[in-house]
Amino acid sequence: MKILILHGPNLNLLGTREPEVYGRRTLDDINQLLSEIAVSKGLELRILQSNHEGALIDAIHAARQWADGIVINPGAFTHYSFALRDAVAAVELPTIEVHLSNVAAREEFRHKSVITAVCLGQISGFGWRSYPLALQALLDHLADD
Amino acid sequence: MKILILHGPNLNLLGTREPEVYGRRTLDDINQLLSEIAVSKGLELRILQSNHEGALIDAIHAARQWADGIVINPGAFTHYSFALRDAVAAVELPTIEVHLSNVAAREEFRHKSVITAVCLGQISGFGWRSYPLALQALLDHLADD
Amino acid sequence: MKILILHGPNLNLLGTREPEVYGRRTLDDINQLLSEIAVSKGLELRILQSNHEGALIDAIHAARQWADGIVINPGAFTHYSFALRDAVAAVELPTIEVHLSNVAAREEFRHKSVITAVCLGQISGFGWRSYPLALQALLDHLADD
Amino acid sequence: MKILILHGPNLNLLGTREPEVYGRRTLDDINQLLSEIAVSKGLELRILQSNHEGALIDAIHAARQWADGIVINPGAFTHYSFALRDAVAAVELPTIEVHLSNVAAREEFRHKSVITAVCLGQISGFGWRSYPLALQALLDHLADD
Amino acid sequence: MKILILHGPNLNLLGTREPEVYGRRTLDDINQLLSEIAVSKGLELRILQSNHEGALIDAIHAARQWADGIVINPGAFTHYSFALRDAVAAVELPTIEVHLSNVAAREEFRHKSVITAVCLGQISGFGWRSYPLALQALLDHLADD
Amino acid sequence: MKILILHGPNLNLLGTREPEVYGRRTLDDINQLLSEIAVSKGLELRILQSNHEGALIDAIHAARQWADGIVINPGAFTHYSFALRDAVAAVELPTIEVHLSNVAAREEFRHKSVITAVCLGQISGFGWRSYPLALQALLDHLADD
Amino acid sequence: MKILILHGPNLNLLGTREPEVYGRRTLDDINQLLSEIAVSKGLELRILQSNHEGALIDAIHAARQWADGIVINPGAFTHYSFALRDAVAAVELPTIEVHLSNVAAREEFRHKSVITAVCLGQISGFGWRSYPLALQALLDHLADD
Amino acid sequence: MKILILHGPNLNLLGTREPEVYGRRTLDDINQLLSEIAVSKGLELRILQSNHEGALIDAIHAARQWADGIVINPGAFTHYSFALRDAVAAVELPTIEVHLSNVAAREEFRHKSVITAVCLGQISGFGWRSYPLALQALLDHLADD
Amino acid sequence: MKILILHGPNLNLLGTREPEVYGRRTLDDINQLLSEIAVSKGLELRILQSNHEGALIDAIHAARQWADGIVINPGAFTHYSFALRDAVAAVELPTIEVHLSNVAAREEFRHKSVITAVCLGQISGFGWRSYPLALQALLDHLADD
Amino acid sequence: MKILILHGPNLNLLGTREPEVYGRRTLDDINQLLSEIAVSKGLELRILQSNHEGALIDAIHAARQWADGIVINPGAFTHYSFALRDAVAAVELPTIEVHLSNVAAREEFRHKSVITAVCLGQISGFGWRSYPLALQALLDHLADD
Amino acid sequence: MKILILHGPNLNLLGTREPEVYGRRTLDDINQLLSEIAVSKGLELRILQSNHEGALIDAIHAARQWADGIVINPGAFTHYSFALRDAVAAVELPTIEVHLSNVAAREEFRHKSVITAVCLGQISGFGWRSYPLALQALLDHLADD
Amino acid sequence: MKILILHGPNLNLLGTREPEVYGRRTLDDINQLLSEIAVSKGLELRILQSNHEGALIDAIHAARQWADGIVINPGAFTHYSFALRDAVAAVELPTIEVHLSNVAAREEFRHKSVITAVCLGQISGFGWRSYPLALQALLDHLADD
Repeated sequence: MKILILHGPNLNLLGTREPEVYGRRTLDDINQLLSEIAVSKGLELRILQSNHEGALIDAIHAARQWADGIVINPGAFTHYSFALRDAVAAVELPTIEVHLSNVAAREEFRHKSVITAVCLGQISGFGWRSYPLALQALLDHLADD
Repeated sequence: MKILILHGPNLNLLGTREPEVYGRRTLDDINQLLSEIAVSKGLELRILQSNHEGALIDAIHAARQWADGIVINPGAFTHYSFALRDAVAAVELPTIEVHLSNVAAREEFRHKSVITAVCLGQISGFGWRSYPLALQALLDHLADD
Repeated sequence: MKILILHGPNLNLLGTREPEVYGRRTLDDINQLLSEIAVSKGLELRILQSNHEGALIDAIHAARQWADGIVINPGAFTHYSFALRDAVAAVELPTIEVHLSNVAAREEFRHKSVITAVCLGQISGFGWRSYPLALQALLDHLADD
Repeated sequence: MKILILHGPNLNLLGTREPEVYGRRTLDDINQLLSEIAVSKGLELRILQSNHEGALIDAIHAARQWADGIVINPGAFTHYSFALRDAVAAVELPTIEVHLSNVAAREEFRHKSVITAVCLGQISGFGWRSYPLALQALLDHLADD
Repeated sequence: MKILILHGPNLNLLGTREPEVYGRRTLDDINQLLSEIAVSKGLELRILQSNHEGALIDAIHAARQWADGIVINPGAFTHYSFALRDAVAAVELPTIEVHLSNVAAREEFRHKSVITAVCLGQISGFGWRSYPLALQALLDHLADD
Repeated sequence: MKILILHGPNLNLLGTREPEVYGRRTLDDINQLLSEIAVSKGLELRILQSNHEGALIDAIHAARQWADGIVINPGAFTHYSFALRDAVAAVELPTIEVHLSNVAAREEFRHKSVITAVCLGQISGFGWRSYPLALQALLDHLADD
Repeated sequence: MKILILHGPNLNLLGTREPEVYGRRTLDDINQLLSEIAVSKGLELRILQSNHEGALIDAIHAARQWADGIVINPGAFTHYSFALRDAVAAVELPTIEVHLSNVAAREEFRHKSVITAVCLGQISGFGWRSYPLALQALLDHLADD
Repeated sequence: MKILILHGPNLNLLGTREPEVYGRRTLDDINQLLSEIAVSKGLELRILQSNHEGALIDAIHAARQWADGIVINPGAFTHYSFALRDAVAAVELPTIEVHLSNVAAREEFRHKSVITAVCLGQISGFGWRSYPLALQALLDHLADD
Repeated sequence: MKILILHGPNLNLLGTREPEVYGRRTLDDINQLLSEIAVSKGLELRILQSNHEGALIDAIHAARQWADGIVINPGAFTHYSFALRDAVAAVELPTIEVHLSNVAAREEFRHKSVITAVCLGQISGFGWRSYPLALQALLDHLADD
Repeated sequence: MKILILHGPNLNLLGTREPEVYGRRTLDDINQLLSEIAVSKGLELRILQSNHEGALIDAIHAARQWADGIVINPGAFTHYSFALRDAVAAVELPTIEVHLSNVAAREEFRHKSVITAVCLGQISGFGWRSYPLALQALLDHLADD
Repeated sequence: MKILILHGPNLNLLGTREPEVYGRRTLDDINQLLSEIAVSKGLELRILQSNHEGALIDAIHAARQWADGIVINPGAFTHYSFALRDAVAAVELPTIEVHLSNVAAREEFRHKSVITAVCLGQISGFGWRSYPLALQALLDHLADD
Repeated sequence: MKILILHGPNLNLLGTREPEVYGRRTLDDINQLLSEIAVSKGLELRILQSNHEGALIDAIHAARQWADGIVINPGAFTHYSFALRDAVAAVELPTIEVHLSNVAAREEFRHKSVITAVCLGQISGFGWRSYPLALQALLDHLADD
């Protein structure tokens, strides 16, 4: 199975940015962890981080050609990027939205996601662990089809 | 480790109620599955379903005496039971909110949870699989402390 | 035909509570009247009043086993009990919402019902007469199927 | 007893307009039915359908001279015609608002009635049967005075 | 004089729950204190704590038969239980709403009480001392009648 | 000078409709009074009352050919008839909005006028006297040009 | 092909009313232009302007008997006439909403149309040219069926 | 008869402040005009302008001892001074609110008056002429009692 | 102990202003009562009533030099005077907000206090008795420190 | 004449993305069609599709140097890209907003365009035909200047 | 050049009031600093602090006679004093609004200024340094005219 | 000291775009001016203008490695780019938001900044002079640390 992992804006700063909110693991740590899981489960992962909305959309579009599903942490795009939402809806791949922090416990503007409604589901609040949980959820879903 | 599993109102009808939304597994199926996982991992689970807000609060209070964490699907109480929220906040046990359906893709009133902000995190949209994912997330969290 | 009549919170005080709003007939008077109608029409009625949201939900669930339809005056639960709403939606029995008073002419918070949308219809404003009208509406509906 | 039956805008299309929402009976069918009930109960009915707000208001005003009560389905005027509301309030005849469909289960804009507050009560959701129920409710009310 | 003291949901955890917000006295401490005041003033107190909305409503209804007034801390029901509000309004006993914390200085959702409008008055923010103040206010009011 | 006096919906019931709000003078009384003022001041008045929004618009349009100004009591159209607003704006005659009652002291929906912004000014709350005041204001304005 | 052209309230004043907003062509100019197009394309047009909401609704109803589609400029009814909306929805003819001005660039209340959602599409902002564009759009659509 | 004329904040700048909105007459001009009217009608006027909310309130309180009515232009206090509103309500003298400009045609915040509801009525939009109209309205009202 | 008692705008009219809302005791009566309590408890009170927001702020500032706490009835300033709020917050003296009436049962605009959040607590609804209760609450609080 | 055609995010998926909403023609089909029209009318077209907001803004800026007008389908940027709006406003070229679908009939968030107000006009709901209509509208407008 | 420096309510407490928000410099320190800058640049400054809205308005009015510009920190009046806004607008002197704290990072109610729109610009968040920056901005502006 | 100067979308058009709003100086003029100031003060400036949100975020991230502070004019991103906000918050460099125009005096959507709250402060309304003021403010702040 082939999975696209997308990290949205500012996630490249993980581990250094507000560690009391986002934890001390870097994005490389997380990607390394996900790669190890992929190896152990025979998955193919492609991973992209970008601060550019358009680059994330392009990657989602490209995934139609090769991927079975998407795990996406849209970062702050969560709250306003209807373009990203439309991209997720358009490719019709099972997609899971993840967040490191418990967004419902933070600023008011983070309580609203414009993206969840077109995803399979959402996992938030478990720090770096949100990613392997999302990967698991996606695999289970795909296995079931 | 000891975990309280709470199922809120109307979840006793699972499998028969709007199966296109909630799936065809019954609550007994899910509880059976969780019990098997518990056995395999050496966990102690206590499981309660109730349509009574007060009964759920009582169970959360009681959990202070015996449990290490809580997995709760608050059902429709998600959207208005500030009493349930206060109960979760008061006992200070790590708590995970789960939903079978992707609530963000349903009626407007289901988009707001008054409970998430006092939980560790939220998992929604994976049908019955939301439960084992939540159990996993809770175990990982507890293992980490 | 078998009908469940549900009276929500505070309706046990009918006849004594704000009679200028709710009229002077007691709940017993109304139940007696409904029973007489039931006898005359060969219906079986089961009647429950409760101030406990959970008890009303339990009764609605149980009705799946025996009833052909429901007449419910949700009292103040009308305005916030999404759990009650989900119960009505889940059992898929034709249900009619009744109110003694004309709720649209009272406080702002009474103008919104979270329950009507999952019912067959609503009858409000006719005092105790709202009940026999609802019973008639339900019988007509059932006769038509 | 003398009753004015008012049908608001677009109700002349009943039976052909969105029959899955409004049913397959025509307005003539309903008027015929109401006339038969009137004969059987010794009532005098006058019936008017109009797509003109002013014509409905004129008819309500005229009813002060001859009618004992009004049954009105304001159609879409329900949601914005404060002029119709003022007419109902001004003539001080007992008035019942009826709707064929369960307006609370349809578009958001249909959830608000500017007219109910000045009526005796409201009956909605029972298709053509809403009318005879309203007639019954009005007769009971008038008999009681 | 006879007074009903009602403690709403989660108040049984007083002293252990978020003591920086609610103080370190337990509910037993407070009840003991109120009982001593009652003895010194020749009052009869009946005290109930419940996490069940319905149980609080039942107790308010029962108070019609024996009590001269009510002191109620509705806990989180303050913010949404219109059923509790209707109960207070229905029994027409002078009722005082108390809060331990200064609710206006906390989360937005705690700023709105659906209950105050049907009470005699409100006392909030004085920790456990809110209760004896409320008792005093109620006695003064009753003495005045 | 030539003035159009327009009375909106339900104003034909003046004197009989809610006299505690609108006073006991009939519309004929008011029109008679205005006619007497007109004679004494050498004015030509044309007066129209209609419950039909379109008839009022037609009259405003026609006024472009003969009138120097308009006094209008839009009745309930005040609150929603953007068509009436556009008519007033289009003819570019000085127009004064009058109300018998103090609309700001009544129901919330009466607090908003969609028409005032395109008028010269507004006079409200003086019962039948609002009309001669408006006439005076209009004459002063026209005399000044 | 047969097309109904409807002009709503105040459009009879075109050319004289606020020409900086609506342009200097009169409604007759526009109708003449449309008639010429009709001749050249072998269409039958019927054209109605009315300031009466009911007259527009009546015309829409009548069109069921003879027309293949509708071009409507609802004028200010755009913003509140749910009755007009229901008429358009009921007759199930392809309907195009046109506006001379760019309503999104004008007063806030003009930004909302209650009618567009039941039309095929909307064309606005091109002055008198909005009409021939709409006619073209309607013909293309009908040709395609 | 004795009348208090109150001018609120910034009205001392009349004639120099934004003359295209407020006109070119100074406050002295207006006061002179009102004094002449007073002489001709045998009235006693007392006139106060203040930029201090408290001074206006004090003057309203004092008026209870000597005045028969009040004409007040509250200036910008119109939009937020609930203290001024309470003062007007408390003294129970007939009070008329005047504005020079047509406030409904200006910035959004000027559309709301917190004061009108406790006045007899409102006159706005006639420039300096709003004052003599208000004086006339007040005299008529007092003559009537 | 030394306490500042502050009475806000219009409270000087107590006893004469809307006695059905505020009671028949004058402000002098209340001040006399508070002075007697002060004597009996060995307190020093300074009492100020003002209709001037600035005067109340000045008095709060001055209290930093001499007072141990403040009891304030902000009158209508409750609802908008953020300046008063900042003054209370700035001096960091324990402050209690009192109201004679049950503000939650009155007009919508009275439901919001901008001041409570920076006070110790609030007491409202007990008429003149709100003051001695507040004094008691303040003394208890100060005794505890 | 020279025209810039801009296609916003996700429009590259046309024909494959939700064809029941957007139709089955690909973007290449549409561009081909527009090119043919251009040839027949002697126009120069430049066409750009991008999922990158910045690339669209850059292209609009560049158009100042060569284009006479713009046809833009902003896709989901319609609803939030104030940067795109400012770009359109800044270059002061006549610009027409087009949409394939009838956005007013879809999700709530699609009802608001932040861009229309700075365009010449809007055309929406005619599928791929919206483009040639917009091109026609732009040519007519330019021919007129 | 002559500049009026205005300090609004509670700024007299600077240095003692919430120093973590407003800094430890007193208002005298700031005024001393501004005076030194004035001497060095040959400016005449007049400085006023007041807790009275009316006194600030009076000072702004007086400035028309002598000042070339105004620097104002409106304190909490920022958020509601439309009277102050009107004063600034009326005198037509270039005015700069300053704030010590970054108001956008504090309570919700501080995010809205009713005054900025009639000023030249705003400087906020630099503690006492906001003042010399504003003075510089004002001088640059005046030098430019 | 080393400072990053960031210019957001459409600022490359300065001097040509709506000069009555933004002034006639080009961005090059402003950059030249800032560079001269930098030379005179021994600062190192790096300047970037981009219409791409992602490019601005990348530049902010890179600044962590070399800059002491940031001056940013986010252009229209001010109003919706939560990604930009998160970037500013993440790098924890002192950042000042500048605007050329007085955004509070323009369209409603420009009144809200999602970025200010994570900046040191804001300077707006002084045209090109806002930049040197911001540079001064940043230097003062850095000198102070």
